[in-house]
Amino acid sequence: MNKIEHIGIAVKNLEESNKLFSKLFGESYYKIEEVESESVNTSFFKVGDNKIELLEATKVDSPIARFIEKKGEGVHHIAFHVSDIASEIKRLKKEGFKVLNEIPKKGADNKLVAFLHPKSSNGVLIELCQDVN
Amino acid sequence: MNKIEHIGIAVKNLEESNKLFSKLFGESYYKIEEVESESVNTSFFKVGDNKIELLEATKVDSPIARFIEKKGEGVHHIAFHVSDIASEIKRLKKEGFKVLNEIPKKGADNKLVAFLHPKSSNGVLIELCQDVN
Repeated sequence: MNKIEHIGIAVKNLEESNKLFSKLFGESYYKIEEVESESVNTSFFKVGDNKIELLEATKVDSPIARFIEKKGEGVHHIAFHVSDIASEIKRLKKEGFKVLNEIPKKGADNKLVAFLHPKSSNGVLIELCQDVN
Repeated sequence: MNKIEHIGIAVKNLEESNKLFSKLFGESYYKIEEVESESVNTSFFKVGDNKIELLEATKVDSPIARFIEKKGEGVHHIAFHVSDIASEIKRLKKEGFKVLNEIPKKGADNKLVAFLHPKSSNGVLIELCQDVN
């Protein structure tokens, strides 16, 4: 794993949270993107070489809506940048991690992504992401 | 804010979690440190230019023990590296964030730190940290 690619934060209202995080970082988001397959609206902030992704549910029965209902707003996942997602999935499966997407899927921000189940990683939902060239 | 300095993850058993995260990153921790003032044992892993800090409570009534009791293991805080913590505290207070340590305190890993209350930042406990020279 090369670095923390981004931290995903579940929010109730993207517009309000965009204002809040713009104040926090002293800089606005650089991108807004809807990911229909995940039923989310997202925004991305740069912090040095890392990113913060805010996630707002677009459907009441979506994963982000359910997360907020259960746990409230807050950190939803940590994404690590990998060079070769297929070999990382293979390696982590062998190490005993529960890989939720054995075949990587298309995520936000032009990435191929796969998630590890939080039960196999100390309660942390982990995303692996590789750039799509 | 310059970058994500580290992500703090609350764990029940540091020894077990050290093994787990060593498998995840394919590399062991580079430091173990007890922070008596916070009643925690910590370990630090490098992921590129970022760090992951695992936190295990050393007392049953400590903040990390209470966090795990309430929410289970998982992401506890996000720490951002700042160049001048005093001026960041001043700026963020003015922007409406609830600063928990108006006078920065000594944290793990040779840092001056201050926290922002999660209620003022979308449920995310945010740490500011500046290197101590």
